[in-house]
Amino acid sequence: MDEVNSLSWEAFIQRFGNVIEHGPIVAGAIWTQRPFSDARELHRAVCGFLDTLPSTGKESILRCHPDLAGALARADRLTTESKKEQRGAGLLNLTKEEAAIITELNISYKSKFQFPFVICARENKKEAIIAGLKARINNTVDVELQHGIGEVKKIAWYRILDLVPTASDQMIAKY
Amino acid sequence: MDEVNSLSWEAFIQRFGNVIEHGPIVAGAIWTQRPFSDARELHRAVCGFLDTLPSTGKESILRCHPDLAGALARADRLTTESKKEQRGAGLLNLTKEEAAIITELNISYKSKFQFPFVICARENKKEAIIAGLKARINNTVDVELQHGIGEVKKIAWYRILDLVPTASDQMIAKY
Repeated sequence: MDEVNSLSWEAFIQRFGNVIEHGPIVAGAIWTQRPFSDARELHRAVCGFLDTLPSTGKESILRCHPDLAGALARADRLTTESKKEQRGAGLLNLTKEEAAIITELNISYKSKFQFPFVICARENKKEAIIAGLKARINNTVDVELQHGIGEVKKIAWYRILDLVPTASDQMIAKY
Repeated sequence: MDEVNSLSWEAFIQRFGNVIEHGPIVAGAIWTQRPFSDARELHRAVCGFLDTLPSTGKESILRCHPDLAGALARADRLTTESKKEQRGAGLLNLTKEEAAIITELNISYKSKFQFPFVICARENKKEAIIAGLKARINNTVDVELQHGIGEVKKIAWYRILDLVPTASDQMIAKY
């Protein structure tokens, strides 16, 4: 971690700025907590900062995520990280029927919650994601905001593992 | 404002995501406060959200700004908005001596405060910016954090005026 801990804030934000999708403010905020002893401590700092945000900020963190298998994916305008994750879950290679189901569920979900459905694609294949959408759409807004932020934290964990040299050797792979 | 108030959050974040430099989270957070009656109300929402952030978040908002006349400017890697503002203030056309002074002051400022010097370039020419750097470097961290966020709010105001049709006709030009 010495190399990570020695980064200027510019370099740190450059490296970790998309650990939270479109969230360089999170990387910039935790920079002062260096030195981090390992990837897990860095991740704890990310989670801790998310927890300090007001509800409007948490909702916005979700709104800065793309729809799964949505318009940005079809236009090939996802962030590098998101594209890799969605591809891994099989979301960039859907049957016409699956695509239609997800589109319709996304619309209903967004209409109810005013933020998009977020799930850690590294821990779910497309079948589990569709099942998750169908189940979570019945939650209350408060529960779903918490649930969504929980998924954001999982996504962040895997992204950190990709960015911190040797971290994956030291850690359990699963969140 | 009808057109602005009718935007989906995706379109709203796309349009207003850099009203706060690298801060789509701010645009995404205030989206739920629509309808806005005018540009000033939209700006108040931006300021209100900044005020809800913890100090670490405010510091990070500053860290997501480039150094004035700094490395990103020299590498032509500024955001469109920041480039326009820095050019307008004369910061992209400095004498060697001015450049050296600003570089040295930026280094001292960042070393003391752990965030960069932020000033509304639309209200200051290079001479005033150099004078501001020399003066503000003597402040305490708390005062300077507040001062920096105040400048961020001014920058946001001018950026909003550029983005809301007819807003500049309805408003006084000066912050």
